[in-house]
Amino acid sequence: MPVTNQPQAQPRIRIAHVSPTVEDGRYPAKRCVGDQMTVSADVLRDGHDMLRAVVRYRAAGEPDWREVPMRQVDAQVGGVRWEASFALERIGSHEFDIEAWTDVFGTWRDELRRKVEGPQADLTGELGEGELLLEQAAKRVTDSEQRGQIHSALRTLRDGAVSRQAHYAAALDPVLLRAMHADPERPGAARLPRPLRIEADRVLARFGSWYELFPRSFGGLAGVERVLPELSTLGFDVLYLPPIHPIGVKNRKGPNNALTAGPGDPGSPWAIGSPDGGHDAVHPELGTIDDLRRLTARARELGIDVALDFAIQCSADHPWLTEHPEWFHRRPDGTLKYAENPPKRYQDIYNVNWETPSWRELWLELRRIVLHWVDCGVKVFRVDNPHTKPFPFWEWLIAEVHNVDRDVIFLAEAFTKREIMRELARIGFTQSYTYFTWKNSRWELSEYVSELAYSEESDYFRPNFFANTPDILHEYLQHGGPPAFVTRLVLASTLSPSYGIYSGYEWFENVPVRAGSEEYVDSEKYEAKARKLDGPLLGLVRRLNELRRDNPALQQLSNVTFLETHNEGLIAYAKREGSNTVIVVVNIDPHNAQEGSVLIPAQLNLPPVFRVRDQLQLVGAAYDWRMGHNYVRLDPQSQQAHVFVVESA
Amino acid sequence: MPVTNQPQAQPRIRIAHVSPTVEDGRYPAKRCVGDQMTVSADVLRDGHDMLRAVVRYRAAGEPDWREVPMRQVDAQVGGVRWEASFALERIGSHEFDIEAWTDVFGTWRDELRRKVEGPQADLTGELGEGELLLEQAAKRVTDSEQRGQIHSALRTLRDGAVSRQAHYAAALDPVLLRAMHADPERPGAARLPRPLRIEADRVLARFGSWYELFPRSFGGLAGVERVLPELSTLGFDVLYLPPIHPIGVKNRKGPNNALTAGPGDPGSPWAIGSPDGGHDAVHPELGTIDDLRRLTARARELGIDVALDFAIQCSADHPWLTEHPEWFHRRPDGTLKYAENPPKRYQDIYNVNWETPSWRELWLELRRIVLHWVDCGVKVFRVDNPHTKPFPFWEWLIAEVHNVDRDVIFLAEAFTKREIMRELARIGFTQSYTYFTWKNSRWELSEYVSELAYSEESDYFRPNFFANTPDILHEYLQHGGPPAFVTRLVLASTLSPSYGIYSGYEWFENVPVRAGSEEYVDSEKYEAKARKLDGPLLGLVRRLNELRRDNPALQQLSNVTFLETHNEGLIAYAKREGSNTVIVVVNIDPHNAQEGSVLIPAQLNLPPVFRVRDQLQLVGAAYDWRMGHNYVRLDPQSQQAHVFVVESA
Repeated sequence: MPVTNQPQAQPRIRIAHVSPTVEDGRYPAKRCVGDQMTVSADVLRDGHDMLRAVVRYRAAGEPDWREVPMRQVDAQVGGVRWEASFALERIGSHEFDIEAWTDVFGTWRDELRRKVEGPQADLTGELGEGELLLEQAAKRVTDSEQRGQIHSALRTLRDGAVSRQAHYAAALDPVLLRAMHADPERPGAARLPRPLRIEADRVLARFGSWYELFPRSFGGLAGVERVLPELSTLGFDVLYLPPIHPIGVKNRKGPNNALTAGPGDPGSPWAIGSPDGGHDAVHPELGTIDDLRRLTARARELGIDVALDFAIQCSADHPWLTEHPEWFHRRPDGTLKYAENPPKRYQDIYNVNWETPSWRELWLELRRIVLHWVDCGVKVFRVDNPHTKPFPFWEWLIAEVHNVDRDVIFLAEAFTKREIMRELARIGFTQSYTYFTWKNSRWELSEYVSELAYSEESDYFRPNFFANTPDILHEYLQHGGPPAFVTRLVLASTLSPSYGIYSGYEWFENVPVRAGSEEYVDSEKYEAKARKLDGPLLGLVRRLNELRRDNPALQQLSNVTFLETHNEGLIAYAKREGSNTVIVVVNIDPHNAQEGSVLIPAQLNLPPVFRVRDQLQLVGAAYDWRMGHNYVRLDPQSQQAHVFVVESA
Repeated sequence: MPVTNQPQAQPRIRIAHVSPTVEDGRYPAKRCVGDQMTVSADVLRDGHDMLRAVVRYRAAGEPDWREVPMRQVDAQVGGVRWEASFALERIGSHEFDIEAWTDVFGTWRDELRRKVEGPQADLTGELGEGELLLEQAAKRVTDSEQRGQIHSALRTLRDGAVSRQAHYAAALDPVLLRAMHADPERPGAARLPRPLRIEADRVLARFGSWYELFPRSFGGLAGVERVLPELSTLGFDVLYLPPIHPIGVKNRKGPNNALTAGPGDPGSPWAIGSPDGGHDAVHPELGTIDDLRRLTARARELGIDVALDFAIQCSADHPWLTEHPEWFHRRPDGTLKYAENPPKRYQDIYNVNWETPSWRELWLELRRIVLHWVDCGVKVFRVDNPHTKPFPFWEWLIAEVHNVDRDVIFLAEAFTKREIMRELARIGFTQSYTYFTWKNSRWELSEYVSELAYSEESDYFRPNFFANTPDILHEYLQHGGPPAFVTRLVLASTLSPSYGIYSGYEWFENVPVRAGSEEYVDSEKYEAKARKLDGPLLGLVRRLNELRRDNPALQQLSNVTFLETHNEGLIAYAKREGSNTVIVVVNIDPHNAQEGSVLIPAQLNLPPVFRVRDQLQLVGAAYDWRMGHNYVRLDPQSQQAHVFVVESA
């Protein structure tokens, strides 16, 4: 006969399905400082008693919890969902908990009310119960005014000279309810098994305009410094530089990824390391550490972050190969393994061996390198291929760097399986490259953006929509001419709060190395160009960046509503934040005019008729739009997209 | 400057999103003994290495884990999902874990293969690597045949006299791969944070036909015993009896819930307790404990389970009121609170006070009572209003009873908020009453059944579709006449593996106590009837129960596919299990003939043309059906439903 397990006291209230929760709390949800944080949960209890609940929260290091009352949001449909919001005032880690308890007085009051409203009955016993509740609470409520209100009600209830109706009125007085709710006692209180985490980043984690350029095409770091004012005027927030470290000579690649380089060929910046140094050095042809410090300082004055590339891989000349041979993988015959994914080979690159017995020293050295650049004023890192390095390493590294400087942002350049990209975001990457370049049709775009905006991953995966990169010249751009560049620029900059372009985009550069390839011909990865910030698309870039700053609706992702256009060649969407509503209509066809009608649905809560003004014209035309159908026509010959701002009445 | 947190060794492999997981493993998933248990998970690792994974599982009390290999199921679409299945051979608790590790040899072999197939290159270094892997594995592999295969490959690889092609062939030999996979070493192995749980019930937990009757209307327990053979012939698996305990005299309700009872009125069986005893006694008018023991024993011989009602509430005459006054709630003036939900009052019933300081004694007494009836041969309990008793109590009680007898089934009679009903299922109730009686239109039925069958709750919430109960005579039955009873019977018995009817259904009893009420007039709850098992609907009941036993497809829930009928008045669905396919078409309109065409979709994997035979006719007609549209017409005057079985070719 089995032994009886003695009953254990447990709360009758259950709190379940808390949002946001990332992987049952193993990872934090991400927000930005200043965000309104909404927490919701199912709060369950047996029986019919009324409940109360609060969200408790605090920033890391704060000794005391703050509390905000939750309210039930679906009572009318028989639900059990409670919700509360609070502002994230500080950058960094926060935790929150939920506490729910039985509202004993509220339940008594509600039952009394229903009995008073029902058929007449003797409620002496009920009133006696209430009296007891008031007596007990009066001993605990600390606010003297509220205590006075309770005592006042008690006096009425005990007064045999007044009518029964006066007793009821005193018991049901909303002022008494508020006073009783000040009672610090929380009968049957339940909490979460453990608090959940939130990481509050600076706003650039969510919202920023990125520009990528190769410093060697702009005259090195000093030359880059000279174009900072133009980048600022264009409205860019982040200037991303591919690796600036010394480039290997042995096995250096030539133009168009040739296996051998000529004497003047500069090599790929991703083949890091030479006798001039490794990951902590600046390529002498680009400048010095001090040049970089000056660049980051000057950029900061202009409100621009300089982003460096963090690519954990070595050329054959990297100092580590001699100083730390134990960090690399050698075959039994002693040969070093270069990077490869057969049949592809990267003969100029050696990967570190993450399984080396000296892995701890390797991790610490990589931490030292990142913090070295942080010390030089670099607060943003674009991490190259993070999905080929261990998850535990990134989780540790990012936390370590954030311990030193919580402003640092890590962008994951992982083009791989969706779930791997999500895992990188969960373990700490601030934002991530996406599949955007390969989403070109209306249904691809609306499906993908809806997933990013409204699935669970919106709590931790922040997209950065690059319209092109040195590795990705999509065939849509190859064949669509300038209208294609306009389409993709407008989409990137208005769909995603973070977006970017790589230089050359503004010149409509569109020739691939060969048909069917997404690589540029004469790619800047293998040769230097002579570039200036003077491309014909920059006027539109500047305007879009300006609109992004002026319209809060464009600074969020999970506020997008895709709109029916009755034409697959036209994509339309609205974004709304507070009183700011932006409606974007884009012709996806770079060759032909497309017309359709944009359906404004009721749930956008716009007036029946409202005025929109086009922001992509020098003199913006105004139109009267309405709930329902609105005719649009976009012609590559004249205008490829509308960005409408709804004017307030 | 913050301290550096030293790197910690952690697996590079992550296992996520395991199915089934109920509330992140806080509750077990439910299955039945004999079920094929499928476990799936995302298995993630950085880089391109190949992986292997197994599900490990064991029944409670088994010292050793068994293992079944997982295979990736979505490699072709770039996924990360792995899956394995195993049979649940024993009743009771099981746990499972997942282990995944890097397939070092498989990765090496795959890269070698790609290089061998690619442009010619010197692969001496690669072969040396492989040789080392083979040497190491040969020391660990225990099976002598497999060890011999590894040694044989090693000899070839070391043989300088044979060709390079022979080396490759030896290295790539699938026999070698299998031998290498016998290596017990699992590099970089990762497991779940903790094993997950499964509860395997007996099959009656999922599949059973229930009949509810009031023993006092059948001549007490002895009379019930006499109808057991008929119930068996009708194909019922469970005979459910409302409370059989002594009924209170004080405040006893009269016919039609009258506040006062006449001298001959028997009272409601749910007003439990009299001087004759409480929850552990049998009402003297029904028989004795020995009668019950004989009833359960006789039923068992016929393959029928006797289910008792477990209603934790007391009449004013219940012995507990004097023996355990501390278990009840009294007002400050000493008055006892009867059950009420203002303005409703249940003057003949007192609820226990779950907040009593003596709650532990109360719980133990309730445990004793259930085990007392288990000892009398009762293995099924229909629990009255479990949602008004604490969740922790049920979780404890059900586990305690299962510790004594794992065959016991608990059916939750909770008609309340969906999430509360789910929580009761999560904490241990074997099956649950549902909203079925209130789902009468095609879209209500298909939406509700799809949610039950395909949402997460299908892992823990097992529906029992009662077509009526002593409390629920739906207006559809009140107004639809016999065809309505046919419709609801066919729907209940073919949609849900567990279903039931309450006696009187077979006589089309359809008169409510008043318009707008779901209560029966002259309800059996307050008076005895003289009943026999002779209603005109029993022929159909018997046929449906027979079909349910003969067709495995009708014994499952999550195999249902709703079919388009092109008529809202016709509902159609297919259920498939192995080679058994059942197609049900029901006329929802009890008044008019409805015609439409049933669309058989390709995903049902039926032949382009197939033969169906109607099972609801004494001489079943056969029809040639096809993928696509199939004409149907159902007329209340002749036939209200088809249950087709697809005949094998």
